[in-house]
Amino acid sequence: MREIRAGLLGATGAVGQRYINMLGHHPFIHLEVLMGGESAGKKYGEAAHWLFSDPIPEQFARTTVQAANPTAAKGCDLIFSALPSEAAKDIEPKFAAAGHAVISEASAHRMDADVPLMIPEINPDHLDLLNSQRKRRGWKKGIATTPNCTVTGLALVMKPLLDAFPAEKAIVTTMQALSGAGFPGVASLSIIENVIPYIKNEEEKVANEAKKILGSLRDGAVKPNGILMGVSCNRVPVIDGHMETLYCEFSTKVSPEGAIRAMETFRGMPQKLKLPTAPDQPIIVRRENDRPQPRLDRLSGSVPGMSAVVGRVRRGVDDKSLQLTLLSHNTVRGAAGTAILTAELMAAKGYLG
Amino acid sequence: MREIRAGLLGATGAVGQRYINMLGHHPFIHLEVLMGGESAGKKYGEAAHWLFSDPIPEQFARTTVQAANPTAAKGCDLIFSALPSEAAKDIEPKFAAAGHAVISEASAHRMDADVPLMIPEINPDHLDLLNSQRKRRGWKKGIATTPNCTVTGLALVMKPLLDAFPAEKAIVTTMQALSGAGFPGVASLSIIENVIPYIKNEEEKVANEAKKILGSLRDGAVKPNGILMGVSCNRVPVIDGHMETLYCEFSTKVSPEGAIRAMETFRGMPQKLKLPTAPDQPIIVRRENDRPQPRLDRLSGSVPGMSAVVGRVRRGVDDKSLQLTLLSHNTVRGAAGTAILTAELMAAKGYLG
Amino acid sequence: MREIRAGLLGATGAVGQRYINMLGHHPFIHLEVLMGGESAGKKYGEAAHWLFSDPIPEQFARTTVQAANPTAAKGCDLIFSALPSEAAKDIEPKFAAAGHAVISEASAHRMDADVPLMIPEINPDHLDLLNSQRKRRGWKKGIATTPNCTVTGLALVMKPLLDAFPAEKAIVTTMQALSGAGFPGVASLSIIENVIPYIKNEEEKVANEAKKILGSLRDGAVKPNGILMGVSCNRVPVIDGHMETLYCEFSTKVSPEGAIRAMETFRGMPQKLKLPTAPDQPIIVRRENDRPQPRLDRLSGSVPGMSAVVGRVRRGVDDKSLQLTLLSHNTVRGAAGTAILTAELMAAKGYLG
Amino acid sequence: MREIRAGLLGATGAVGQRYINMLGHHPFIHLEVLMGGESAGKKYGEAAHWLFSDPIPEQFARTTVQAANPTAAKGCDLIFSALPSEAAKDIEPKFAAAGHAVISEASAHRMDADVPLMIPEINPDHLDLLNSQRKRRGWKKGIATTPNCTVTGLALVMKPLLDAFPAEKAIVTTMQALSGAGFPGVASLSIIENVIPYIKNEEEKVANEAKKILGSLRDGAVKPNGILMGVSCNRVPVIDGHMETLYCEFSTKVSPEGAIRAMETFRGMPQKLKLPTAPDQPIIVRRENDRPQPRLDRLSGSVPGMSAVVGRVRRGVDDKSLQLTLLSHNTVRGAAGTAILTAELMAAKGYLG
Repeated sequence: MREIRAGLLGATGAVGQRYINMLGHHPFIHLEVLMGGESAGKKYGEAAHWLFSDPIPEQFARTTVQAANPTAAKGCDLIFSALPSEAAKDIEPKFAAAGHAVISEASAHRMDADVPLMIPEINPDHLDLLNSQRKRRGWKKGIATTPNCTVTGLALVMKPLLDAFPAEKAIVTTMQALSGAGFPGVASLSIIENVIPYIKNEEEKVANEAKKILGSLRDGAVKPNGILMGVSCNRVPVIDGHMETLYCEFSTKVSPEGAIRAMETFRGMPQKLKLPTAPDQPIIVRRENDRPQPRLDRLSGSVPGMSAVVGRVRRGVDDKSLQLTLLSHNTVRGAAGTAILTAELMAAKGYLG
Repeated sequence: MREIRAGLLGATGAVGQRYINMLGHHPFIHLEVLMGGESAGKKYGEAAHWLFSDPIPEQFARTTVQAANPTAAKGCDLIFSALPSEAAKDIEPKFAAAGHAVISEASAHRMDADVPLMIPEINPDHLDLLNSQRKRRGWKKGIATTPNCTVTGLALVMKPLLDAFPAEKAIVTTMQALSGAGFPGVASLSIIENVIPYIKNEEEKVANEAKKILGSLRDGAVKPNGILMGVSCNRVPVIDGHMETLYCEFSTKVSPEGAIRAMETFRGMPQKLKLPTAPDQPIIVRRENDRPQPRLDRLSGSVPGMSAVVGRVRRGVDDKSLQLTLLSHNTVRGAAGTAILTAELMAAKGYLG
Repeated sequence: MREIRAGLLGATGAVGQRYINMLGHHPFIHLEVLMGGESAGKKYGEAAHWLFSDPIPEQFARTTVQAANPTAAKGCDLIFSALPSEAAKDIEPKFAAAGHAVISEASAHRMDADVPLMIPEINPDHLDLLNSQRKRRGWKKGIATTPNCTVTGLALVMKPLLDAFPAEKAIVTTMQALSGAGFPGVASLSIIENVIPYIKNEEEKVANEAKKILGSLRDGAVKPNGILMGVSCNRVPVIDGHMETLYCEFSTKVSPEGAIRAMETFRGMPQKLKLPTAPDQPIIVRRENDRPQPRLDRLSGSVPGMSAVVGRVRRGVDDKSLQLTLLSHNTVRGAAGTAILTAELMAAKGYLG
Repeated sequence: MREIRAGLLGATGAVGQRYINMLGHHPFIHLEVLMGGESAGKKYGEAAHWLFSDPIPEQFARTTVQAANPTAAKGCDLIFSALPSEAAKDIEPKFAAAGHAVISEASAHRMDADVPLMIPEINPDHLDLLNSQRKRRGWKKGIATTPNCTVTGLALVMKPLLDAFPAEKAIVTTMQALSGAGFPGVASLSIIENVIPYIKNEEEKVANEAKKILGSLRDGAVKPNGILMGVSCNRVPVIDGHMETLYCEFSTKVSPEGAIRAMETFRGMPQKLKLPTAPDQPIIVRRENDRPQPRLDRLSGSVPGMSAVVGRVRRGVDDKSLQLTLLSHNTVRGAAGTAILTAELMAAKGYLG
């Protein structure tokens, strides 16, 4: 693969840090420009309130954070955006207009009709939207987005199920980790020895984004998947790793064994292309009664944190429904990891020029 | 109400302690005999690993724990049983055979056809099963039971909904507190910064017990409610208070407002009889987006911990379904409190002789 | 006692809420004016992110928050200040200059030579500083302060020890609760499953304030206690209740029994005057090996949260040293409670006019 | 180094699992025999309630656990013992009598006069006690022990300080992790949102073991270090990593800078011999105000978890005293890691024959 020079918007935030953490040794993506808001002008090592036990990779610690404008990123082929949504709304199009490919983790443009919302194992063909986007907006490369951290694991698990059995309805309850709210995010006084049964706008995002990702590309547009979805989002005192219970109804008989087989054997384009951030197995199914658990299983798989982990696959209320529990690392698979995998797919498919 | 002399089986355990905590000042139930296994012969204050910040009521601290046999409880009208299920299986019938009324929190006899499974606001008429039980088994007063801690809040919330709208299906996900597993119960190494997606036998109990409680008494037997139920039980790092998300499908149109009205105005027999442990309002509905929360709301209501607290009442996937979140204190409403309320109802209805 | 009309600065913050929580039913202090910054103009019930499970007392929920200036508090005899220190620096003197008595929880004026730093059980005579303060500054009533939340329990425990045995050195390690940092305060991502070994400026405050409180009034000035103090402050994942280990060296032999007797029998002026917020026993000594514990013991005593709880009183490294563990509720005894007790003492002693 | 065949007593417990976790790829120690009590006869993968997120190394998962007797370990050069103390008391001497070298993590024999208590960086010469032990007891290789998990980091940090400055007194407060109590260990109901100020026998162990380890070998016996020690042990809701505050008095002037230099430049025999489990730097000193923190720093260093991490080095109460905070991984440096390092040292020094 040819070398890719990348910049990072929102480099000091909680998600930005995960990019830094994952791109220390990438075989062909070279993160060269770190951009921030208030931290511009400082060394990254001083500007970031570093959240991981692994230290900041040496090369990034001494890098000076740049202001978030396209001039700073002049030589870059690709801009990762870990900006909050309000900032992303205006800043990302500026970079796209300047000719950059932007891969954004923000919600600002996810639901735009000509913007692909990518999970590379599920909908690699949606990248085709970039062609009409380029044409319509006059951008050289354009904006691709990755979904909300709660959708990613869920959609990944639903994909092989929906391919195998026609599904009608999904009822989802989430137990989400604190890192999903960024830093400082949730106050300790609010969440210690507690559960908060609400995350702003999250339930709508989960339903709408899942339907777009699982939708089909027809005549240059995504027709959303027609599944009915009911979602309840909760915050729990866990650092990393979103847990979700999924109840799913199908229009035909399903068996837990059949569902397990479909999930375990599922492979996507990233696995076929052997992309560096693609886990061997996108979905790992555990047979023990008491798994997955966030603290023990969030970094499972051949690329730690990139596999969804499923357990407790069992009958639902009748022989046309199923229940299961899934876990996915919200800042790896649910954020930086899927964006990096999207970059790798775009590089392989020639979308980075 | 005439005075009731009561004994308590399993007095030193986590649930037993809640009885001690709630019966310190009861107007007519006098807890006089504390019974235990290994703790027999010790002072209660020394035998119990006391879990509450409120101190042990003085009169109980100095009481000597008795061995668990009917002789020890000779003068008692009523035996509360906070025994683990295996012990309850054999010991409770011995007390019943000796002429005692037994109100049991254990699962051992809950599903027996002639044993009432009581939530006094929901099914006061089920006490009638005691008549056939007495006849069949030759017992003077017999065994009544109260449900699993997770069912109690759920069934209480479902009751007015099902009365108002014919329901077909309920999908439930629980986030359960640690005190539900007793002491020592869940190891700290297992649950700190974690969620455990499994509690042994719990999902079956929740479904089966809810259907029995919500069932109707016909010809001296309970016909279980026919609702389809799918349940996923999880343990979270919370001390007290079980949270549950409920998705419910009806055979007619429902509105969140109608559901709220049904729940808020719901009153049962204990409220009509003004029983001392009956909360003014069995179900409290919160309008804020982010309630209920276990740490803040578990002791809500006029009798702290006896009301279920509901929030986030909203549309489901269509206009015939609803979603909501509920919280109920698992050792008050979910254990000792419902048993004491059952005793009060039995006293009022003449079942204690 | 004559009726006192009081105002509260910083009413919506974490400490402000504790005043609201404690002054709902005070026999003679009537909290009539709630003042805030950004919340001015809103109903208190809407402006405060309420942190307690007890609801906001009805009368305060509907009160409109006023801007923080003396006109708003015109009829008040007394102003409680729960302001952050920077704000307190300028705002409190304005209220004092307008003729109000101010009792401040902020650090801004604690170490001023003519400002008393009060724990009513320890140094009621220090109120005499108000006389010179009034003269020097031309204020009608003046500013009294209460100490940092970590000092309060510590100084209370040291007082009877130092009265009984001449002490030379105290080495203190604290394990402090999250509510000490206010709301939102410590990020959950920072403290879950963790300890933070640093709290800004806290160690200096603990040493300096303790020496002033335990100092003696001579010729109208406080001569600080000469004890050497080494302090290490840590934050732990606990909601309320500061734990502290104390190692103390004396110039004479001491026995744990003698120390226990001195602490248990200690009574101060508030106890003699039977002030409403004075606990019967300022220091409760526990004999069990494993007490005090924050979650179980923070609300101990006849006025919940106003007693320090001591345990593990034992020999130090030789027969002239002692070790013990103490717990004190940081927002009750460590903040609002000591300020209210100071107000009661000032009222009783005629300092409120 | 020649190949060493090793057995492990107590293989399925919390500490036993750490050996399994650390010995998956050792260059010359081959763990060949896993021994247990109730788990004997089962596959290790089924017998162990595995606590780590890293999976059980494949070769161990399928190994059958043997009963704990010397026949099972016939071909082994070395037996690691992760037994609880009561079991260790009788079982370990049986293995020693059968000719094995035993390296024990249990407290049973630590304070025996002829048994070395080892931290290889501090007292490699204490291995010489084995010679008299062999003679006296007629054992071919004998028992060496490693200290309590709380002592290990503390003694490691004290060593260079005491070498540089003659010390008189150390006052220590610990905040200890849950894994130090084994599994199931501390009940979650006891420790969530709480601190427990007591760990049975721990304070005595910390003082006595530190003095032995830091003592000097004279005429074939260890003369304990004469430092006065006062220790307060607390349990906090942290998974791994013991935090400790240390106040230390010296008989000469000391400077924080001098102390930092002594700790940072400290190297022991394991570093000189380049033993595989020896970290490059036994003590890492952090300059930030808010470090070390257990969750972020417990796996620091070139051999993760084998370095003590020190921070907040500062003046004590005068210029002859210091204060600092230290962190050490209680199941790596505090248990399995130090035992493995001891085995490496014994191999290098010819004590394994």
